[in-house]
Amino acid sequence: MDINTHTQLCGVLGNPVEHSLSPAIHNAAFQHLSLNFVYLAFQVEDIERAIAGIRALGNIRGLSVTIPHKVSAIPHLNDIDPTAQHIGAINTIVKTQSTLTGYNTDALGALRAIKEQHIPLHDAHVLLVGSGGAARALAFGLAIDGGISKLTIVGIDQRERQELVNDLRQRTPITVKEGDLSQDSLKPMIAEVRLLIHCTPIGMHPNVDASCIPRELLSPHLAIMDIVYNPLETQLLKDAAQAGCQTIPGIDMFLYQAVAQFELWTEQPAPVDVMRRVLESHFS
Amino acid sequence: MDINTHTQLCGVLGNPVEHSLSPAIHNAAFQHLSLNFVYLAFQVEDIERAIAGIRALGNIRGLSVTIPHKVSAIPHLNDIDPTAQHIGAINTIVKTQSTLTGYNTDALGALRAIKEQHIPLHDAHVLLVGSGGAARALAFGLAIDGGISKLTIVGIDQRERQELVNDLRQRTPITVKEGDLSQDSLKPMIAEVRLLIHCTPIGMHPNVDASCIPRELLSPHLAIMDIVYNPLETQLLKDAAQAGCQTIPGIDMFLYQAVAQFELWTEQPAPVDVMRRVLESHFS
Repeated sequence: MDINTHTQLCGVLGNPVEHSLSPAIHNAAFQHLSLNFVYLAFQVEDIERAIAGIRALGNIRGLSVTIPHKVSAIPHLNDIDPTAQHIGAINTIVKTQSTLTGYNTDALGALRAIKEQHIPLHDAHVLLVGSGGAARALAFGLAIDGGISKLTIVGIDQRERQELVNDLRQRTPITVKEGDLSQDSLKPMIAEVRLLIHCTPIGMHPNVDASCIPRELLSPHLAIMDIVYNPLETQLLKDAAQAGCQTIPGIDMFLYQAVAQFELWTEQPAPVDVMRRVLESHFS
Repeated sequence: MDINTHTQLCGVLGNPVEHSLSPAIHNAAFQHLSLNFVYLAFQVEDIERAIAGIRALGNIRGLSVTIPHKVSAIPHLNDIDPTAQHIGAINTIVKTQSTLTGYNTDALGALRAIKEQHIPLHDAHVLLVGSGGAARALAFGLAIDGGISKLTIVGIDQRERQELVNDLRQRTPITVKEGDLSQDSLKPMIAEVRLLIHCTPIGMHPNVDASCIPRELLSPHLAIMDIVYNPLETQLLKDAAQAGCQTIPGIDMFLYQAVAQFELWTEQPAPVDVMRRVLESHFS
């Protein structure tokens, strides 16, 4: 890679950032396509000043934004993509001249992961488990960009769930139902849907045996997506595969949110296979 | 080069920056020593915001600062090296945690270029031709860090020359004389010195035949340094070589200011030969 005065800079803003996989994924993709870009990691405490600097420094093309700045970055940008605005969080900044636009490719990435598996979303009814930041991104993505007509949300945090349900009802045309995360409550809801998306941290390393969906509720009509990607195959995904369900691993959402970022910054199709290989190599 | 979450970023802040040789020189040096650094070019209009951002973004280690920000950057830094403070201009920022310190390696680089040629500076009397920004950096570098005892400054801009002479007299212990840039005035001054440093743009491409030092004034007792480095061998340096003078080409000052930057950022000896080769390749 020949770095010169025209090299474009991308990077991740977060705290901490030292375990981020994004530099490895994006640099491999840039190099594969011989694009004159580099991607670095920037630990940031003061997001306002960091963004002021990004606006002032030429040759910066875009940023990934991660915890704890996904919400607090928004007031410092010039434009926010409508879906990201409804979610209330961004994970991507695109810089054009000195104009900064925020996007949420967590939502876009999840949709693309679902579409790659040919699971129909148009007019669909989806069951979302969880009501935190990831669930919120998924819910608005499905409602605004995914074309679904009905969403059922289950989760244990009543206040958070209620807020998400209310926001969806006010801002999107879809029908929204809600329920508790108990076996009795889940059973009839699962029967109604084709796609269940698990958006809680349950099953994440080191609690790799945990799942909040009882395996006896799983049947072959279901597709199960898990946003947890560490381990690559969660207990939920194992149960789902054994029950004959179609499965979408969390790494796909992770991959496609990066793919969407790459395509926003470079305006070219991302080398998806190269990016997937880098990502998988970090978990194997 | 394997860019990862620990990669340190350096770069140049200026406007314009697209013809800067610094990315080529510093990246070659980083790669030669397998240091986990990259060096980019940042066009900057708003230096205050750019510096605020540099403070807020982790993994930035240092910056080169060039026209038009060498003076205006100063109030936004935490500390200024004393010589740079007297010069009133910086060309280098070193970042340690969120503390930004300014240096002027134009001065340091010139001194090192002179010392590499074994020209004694201790208690020396030097003749400086010109009174602009480069002359000012050289003058304070020679007076504070070089150990000279006497400086004669000739130049055509009376006001600028007077200001430099007054500042040197107030802030340094050396004896300062001044004079006009005429043949009659130069002759006795040249007779008194061992080293003449040319700090005006005369002789720079495309006016490659021009020189403000008449060749009949040159004799073998003199060492002649020219800060002009494009062309590599100016008319003045040609005349000086023909007269039997020791010569220090402008590229040495350019090289050693970069060497000093590199050593401030990496805290290791710079691969001088590698950097010289990159620099020379751009002019050959």
